[in-house]
Amino acid sequence: MASLKSWVTIRENHHFSIANLPFGIIHSKYDASHRPAVAIGDLVLDLKAFSSHKGFSALPSLDISVFSQTSLNAFAALGRRVHGEVRSYLQDILSESTTHPDVLKDNEELKKAVLLPKHETKTHLPMAIGDFTDFFAGKNHAFNVGTMFRGPANALQPNYTHLPVGYHGRSSSIVNSGTPVRRPNGQIVLDPAADPKIPFFGPSRKLDFELELGAFLCTGNTLGDPIRIADAEEHIFGYVLMNDWSARDIQTWEYIPLGPFNAKNFATTISPWVVLAGALEPYKTHGIPNTNQLFPYLKETDSYTAFDIKLSVELTTAEESTSLISQTNAKWLLWSFPQMLAHHSAGGCAMRTGDLLGSGTISGEGEKELGSMLEMSQGGNREIWLRGMEVRRWLLDGDTVTLSGYAGEDEARVGFGECVGRVESAVIF
Amino acid sequence: MASLKSWVTIRENHHFSIANLPFGIIHSKYDASHRPAVAIGDLVLDLKAFSSHKGFSALPSLDISVFSQTSLNAFAALGRRVHGEVRSYLQDILSESTTHPDVLKDNEELKKAVLLPKHETKTHLPMAIGDFTDFFAGKNHAFNVGTMFRGPANALQPNYTHLPVGYHGRSSSIVNSGTPVRRPNGQIVLDPAADPKIPFFGPSRKLDFELELGAFLCTGNTLGDPIRIADAEEHIFGYVLMNDWSARDIQTWEYIPLGPFNAKNFATTISPWVVLAGALEPYKTHGIPNTNQLFPYLKETDSYTAFDIKLSVELTTAEESTSLISQTNAKWLLWSFPQMLAHHSAGGCAMRTGDLLGSGTISGEGEKELGSMLEMSQGGNREIWLRGMEVRRWLLDGDTVTLSGYAGEDEARVGFGECVGRVESAVIF
Ligand SMILES: [Ca+2]
Ligand SMILES: [Ca+2]
Ligand SMILES: [Mg+2]
Ligand SMILES: [Mg+2]
Ligand code: NI
Repeated sequence: MASLKSWVTIRENHHFSIANLPFGIIHSKYDASHRPAVAIGDLVLDLKAFSSHKGFSALPSLDISVFSQTSLNAFAALGRRVHGEVRSYLQDILSESTTHPDVLKDNEELKKAVLLPKHETKTHLPMAIGDFTDFFAGKNHAFNVGTMFRGPANALQPNYTHLPVGYHGRSSSIVNSGTPVRRPNGQIVLDPAADPKIPFFGPSRKLDFELELGAFLCTGNTLGDPIRIADAEEHIFGYVLMNDWSARDIQTWEYIPLGPFNAKNFATTISPWVVLAGALEPYKTHGIPNTNQLFPYLKETDSYTAFDIKLSVELTTAEESTSLISQTNAKWLLWSFPQMLAHHSAGGCAMRTGDLLGSGTISGEGEKELGSMLEMSQGGNREIWLRGMEVRRWLLDGDTVTLSGYAGEDEARVGFGECVGRVESAVIF
Repeated sequence: MASLKSWVTIRENHHFSIANLPFGIIHSKYDASHRPAVAIGDLVLDLKAFSSHKGFSALPSLDISVFSQTSLNAFAALGRRVHGEVRSYLQDILSESTTHPDVLKDNEELKKAVLLPKHETKTHLPMAIGDFTDFFAGKNHAFNVGTMFRGPANALQPNYTHLPVGYHGRSSSIVNSGTPVRRPNGQIVLDPAADPKIPFFGPSRKLDFELELGAFLCTGNTLGDPIRIADAEEHIFGYVLMNDWSARDIQTWEYIPLGPFNAKNFATTISPWVVLAGALEPYKTHGIPNTNQLFPYLKETDSYTAFDIKLSVELTTAEESTSLISQTNAKWLLWSFPQMLAHHSAGGCAMRTGDLLGSGTISGEGEKELGSMLEMSQGGNREIWLRGMEVRRWLLDGDTVTLSGYAGEDEARVGFGECVGRVESAVIF
């Protein structure tokens, strides 16, 4: 892709280059209303203000009322073609060689009104999320965890390569990056060998993060009318980073036979800026190959179904010492989001604008490429070494987990920014 | 409770007596807007019209804008005290001995405007449902199903009596009674003994219903701030009947290790009229006793935590022959809804107005009191006999399942009406 250059000053390797232009919801110091915006470098383009100042008059068929909403849902619902048009137009407006210099580049007054310094704005959840589904497509993660319980020969369950395993999550506890995360209380069995098992009730002692990629849907389907694999890509609005906080000890006791529940529903953090599917298109790559013969409803014609997104995880202690604890890549998925969507709706389940799909924990192949402490500490059985010789097996109160991710280089970097959460101590019952 | 008598003609044992006054959302022949209403006998009181004609002027502090909404959420969010006031006031207005005869009883013109014949109205989903959680509190059901897989000695999982097991469901596919239900396609393993297991993809051959009670929440909690057991009851708006349609064969293959997914998310049917918690108060009874020592966060002071609601299930074939296949009672639950709520939020999960909790399948103790065909046919191993010597093991295309339920007698009957769904044939892939 020929690299665009913006008249906005953007430092090298900034996640929010002109090649990106992710969408989010902000409010600002001088306008408390929640409204759509686009991030460009260290600035934020206020789309409500921009559209009300006729910034989109070159796109006369665009319904600009979508930029007066408090979530991106109405914009998303316009569909992929419109997202592409709007993003291309904004790339033009913001580029050094813009064909419309009068609109913004040479309009100092409008610049002041619509381009806000990021530090004067605050982000909010970008979408109104109807339903949230978390998948388990990170094959290395599934293998690593399965090995702990059943050994390497039986690590993957028999269904694992036949269908994208997933479960319904909780949409009410999805929070924006920066929101503190309270350690959950729950029932925990300390001695798994005891018979009968005796739980106690108290704060989770095995609080973990999960590094995931999330996909937001722009359009859905009617109940009973499955999304076909060939059409699935068109239903994906864009992507965010996702931390699916997990209380491993609560999960062990509660999850039989109906799956994870309170172990997951206390918080799920996402990054605030939705990177549009179109912005990641140049970074499509192979996922983990599936050697299974797939059913037609899951078979993709294109084999570039994953994204080459470099992911990292940092852990910052209460004393503000930061350690890089993982570096991996979003390509380590056995199932693509279109496959997840085709499977999810195969029985007729209705998908809606704003629904969020999580990839499942993403782990690479090496031991520095793991997406959870469960894997890093091998179930709490060994220490994870941090800077200054501190150690962790699980998260402590006061720890901050920062997920980060980007594709591309220099002036064409397409990044997510950060997905951050700090652990607060549990409620005392 | 002294029995009220209404000036509205209501036949004996009608579900919608003056003692009930369930709330729903309707539209009518002459007004297509979706709006709140109350059912009384074969009439429907249009609350939008009633409030706009000053019907609630005797309750000056009531925010009547809640009756111009397209769901009951705004009304629910006002809280239990207000629901009680509104329901009492409407009971007075509708009673033969009303203290306000001028408001409606003697006002023929207003009667015509606000009391609509039910057949001229159509119901809609009563609430905007943020999240849906299905529990597994029907101990007899859990025991029956566990026995099939593990024998009676190990039928209940070790956690079963310690916490209300539940899983997150799918809110997008909750449908109003009467909505047709498409048989789902999915991956199915025909020979569970084969190694390796070979799935095929096609229509579920083991389509089942589940008889459940659903509870809608009126108020929620802030993320991180659990609902305490003593306060939980105040968060419950009211109850509906729920059919948690289930594809047993899809579930068997998909549910390991993360629980039911496509086996459940293709449709969940609820009855349209929300029976307010206050209306069921006189019918509280003991649930199934839990001999476990419970943690304080689950311990209730009152032991009348279930409801004496008579439940029935009818199956109507495509040829319109109807068989009563089950008669049971909503009291057959090990866990109460307040316990479910206290557990659900114990780790800090945010509950919201409009959230729906399902009880789990309700089965009594006898073989005519079962809440699913899975139990009636013992996993498909024996025939369920219908009228005219027809048999079923699972549902056929064209079958209609009708759940019904009520508490109380005669002029004080508090019923749910019906929760109906007809099975349509699967999409052809
Ligand atoms: Ca996860
Ligand atoms: Ca159920
Ligand atoms: Mg989570
Ligand atoms: Mg269901
Ligand atoms: Ni309608």
